[in-house]
Amino acid sequence: MKQVKTPPRGMREFSANQVELRNYIQQTILKTYAQFGFRQIETPCVETLSLLSSGQGGDNEKLLFKILKRGEKLANSDRDNLADLGLRFDLTVPLSRYYANNIGQLPKVNKFIQIGNVWRAERPQNGRYRQFTQCDIDIVGEGSVLAELELIAATTTTLKQFGLSNFNLKINDRRLLTAIVDYCGFKKGSAGQVLITLDKLDKIGVSGIQQELLDSEFKSEAIDKLLALVKKFEGASFQDFIAYNEQVQFVDAQVLADLKFTVDTAKAQSNGDLNISFDLSLVRGMGYYTGQIFEIQVPEYPWSIAGGGRYDEMIGKLTGGKQEIPACGFSIGFERLVLILEDRKFNVPSNQERIVLLGDNNPVGITALLNEAKTLRDAGNHVLVDYRAKKMGKQLDDYKAQGFTQFAVVRENEALHLKSL
Amino acid sequence: MKQVKTPPRGMREFSANQVELRNYIQQTILKTYAQFGFRQIETPCVETLSLLSSGQGGDNEKLLFKILKRGEKLANSDRDNLADLGLRFDLTVPLSRYYANNIGQLPKVNKFIQIGNVWRAERPQNGRYRQFTQCDIDIVGEGSVLAELELIAATTTTLKQFGLSNFNLKINDRRLLTAIVDYCGFKKGSAGQVLITLDKLDKIGVSGIQQELLDSEFKSEAIDKLLALVKKFEGASFQDFIAYNEQVQFVDAQVLADLKFTVDTAKAQSNGDLNISFDLSLVRGMGYYTGQIFEIQVPEYPWSIAGGGRYDEMIGKLTGGKQEIPACGFSIGFERLVLILEDRKFNVPSNQERIVLLGDNNPVGITALLNEAKTLRDAGNHVLVDYRAKKMGKQLDDYKAQGFTQFAVVRENEALHLKSL
Repeated sequence: MKQVKTPPRGMREFSANQVELRNYIQQTILKTYAQFGFRQIETPCVETLSLLSSGQGGDNEKLLFKILKRGEKLANSDRDNLADLGLRFDLTVPLSRYYANNIGQLPKVNKFIQIGNVWRAERPQNGRYRQFTQCDIDIVGEGSVLAELELIAATTTTLKQFGLSNFNLKINDRRLLTAIVDYCGFKKGSAGQVLITLDKLDKIGVSGIQQELLDSEFKSEAIDKLLALVKKFEGASFQDFIAYNEQVQFVDAQVLADLKFTVDTAKAQSNGDLNISFDLSLVRGMGYYTGQIFEIQVPEYPWSIAGGGRYDEMIGKLTGGKQEIPACGFSIGFERLVLILEDRKFNVPSNQERIVLLGDNNPVGITALLNEAKTLRDAGNHVLVDYRAKKMGKQLDDYKAQGFTQFAVVRENEALHLKSL
Repeated sequence: MKQVKTPPRGMREFSANQVELRNYIQQTILKTYAQFGFRQIETPCVETLSLLSSGQGGDNEKLLFKILKRGEKLANSDRDNLADLGLRFDLTVPLSRYYANNIGQLPKVNKFIQIGNVWRAERPQNGRYRQFTQCDIDIVGEGSVLAELELIAATTTTLKQFGLSNFNLKINDRRLLTAIVDYCGFKKGSAGQVLITLDKLDKIGVSGIQQELLDSEFKSEAIDKLLALVKKFEGASFQDFIAYNEQVQFVDAQVLADLKFTVDTAKAQSNGDLNISFDLSLVRGMGYYTGQIFEIQVPEYPWSIAGGGRYDEMIGKLTGGKQEIPACGFSIGFERLVLILEDRKFNVPSNQERIVLLGDNNPVGITALLNEAKTLRDAGNHVLVDYRAKKMGKQLDDYKAQGFTQFAVVRENEALHLKSL
């Protein structure tokens, strides 16, 4: 039978050069966040199907890879009930489960990092993969804006490690958005749906928003009021907005004061090299946000490289507890970061010589080769050993192309002469 | 509905302390092998079912987690044909597929490392897990004992990084074992089966071996001859064995010369701190080995911590090619290494102060806290910020228990006084 040689559709394998970059990114993220007190935890790639179908995963739950039951359990199951496990589609649902499972041993405030693969049965197109790496950073247990400020500082400090600069951080608050929707006269509880439509402003424009909201049978009076407000505050300053709120008071002044404090403090902390701005049109797609939300964009790239916000209700819901558990998180687009760094021909820093030693294929030759290699390795070098080819020119060109910097031919009882490649 | 709080049966989640140790082990392995020219590659966790059922995975293929087809494909499948993908059960089958897929871009000799999770639907008992980490190191394309010697040197050098010493490396050769089985008069081609029985010598003793071979309907004459030989060479030296082979010549003298060269050279390379011995009873369970095989044991622990050998036929078979592709590999028992280091209360080396700063929960307090944290972080420290609790004694005790080494209370316009915890 002809064997399959490629990975499954939409899944990738990584060469040594690709893994080197991905490992460097991962280690840099972990090291920088560690300075801010974040520590990595790990959950299994597989979770029970009931957890993965609880509703908190939104549309991602439709993209589940389900795992078949085994043995008798499979034999005794009907066709609608063949799976008991699934591959995780995000790291947030597993984090919530982990938190519930370990709450007795965890401190009051937790700073978690997770870096790991997730799986989604998407149509593989537009650079979407069926296995990809997510990187989530969450502060669980801190209700004040200290969490938001720490996340912003840690994330921007991390992105700077990769030579990225001049990024724009946009910030908004879901409570403000919800208050505006309510103020416009939409029926109570519909803010989530209205906001997900409003999030499409860039794509479908004002008339598209109007049509979609009309199609959803919202009152045209409320829709017109909302769109007038959107128009009014296009390009307006945060200060304009605060002044207007003092007149109409659609939202508790503390929400705006907190937002202003976050913007001002994050700016001051960044020594002025971070562009941070209030953006009323920032919504973020997921339903679970409850407070400040943010997104970071790198100039020249159309999508955001990181995004997140406060979600005080989700963990409580998932863990089945009665009280809110304050939580705020940032997700770094790991695969997008890889793309940007590859696009910029980023070189993984290395101060290591990579040496190749070439010797003879016989017991005396092998022994000499290994002895010289040992001496160089003990001194901290990267050393590859190989037999000397008949056509050594071709052999040396190949090693140079692979990134080796020095070579030597090893001969018994002769001192080693390293030469540049 | 009550939510599931635990990971699926037989799968584990890891706390920050556990991840710290596991990451340290992984980074140390990668760093040390890199000095020997090994580089990490990565394949997806999911492979097509046909690849995972090709027969080369041995008994592990019976422990597959299969992934349900999706959408119409599932609807149109009968009950025996519900899955199209599976979770990998080892890293060797995916490596072979990777090699076949990329052979055009790969150099003649490849030194691969893989570290990743594998999944097996075992009964979770005896410390067996359904998701666990494997660490495989393979040299593909090198037919001489240079591969074996490099693997032995790299693996023992790596294990020493964890403070392990005095380990025993046992070595044997499958060609020798096969020759002995043939010499005793077992029917041609039955060596694999006879050897898997012989591998149980420790567990079931000579009489158990005899019974199992009789039950398999081998000739009692051949069985008696084999067991007499096993008895004869119990505790015998390698030199005794070579002398005996000169009389009866069951195996090509080159096999023994190579074996002796590997033992002598590995010993010399290790500066005498490696116990390496020829062990005729070493068989290793898998069917695919074709040459030298080895195992490393750490004193005080009953199981081996690493094992491997040459398998020149497997990649060729899996890739469907007509020629042998020489390959030799070592697998480090990652989970066993974790167990040993936890058992020995191994501390992950760190020269970092871990500092906690405590401040007031108001805008002035938060700003002061973040400013002091920034200064310390910019200097490379790990700094956690938190609000000062009313009962600060309890709070400091908690932080000390979490491994923090210093603290300070932050007050506006007051110099910072770090104190030991």
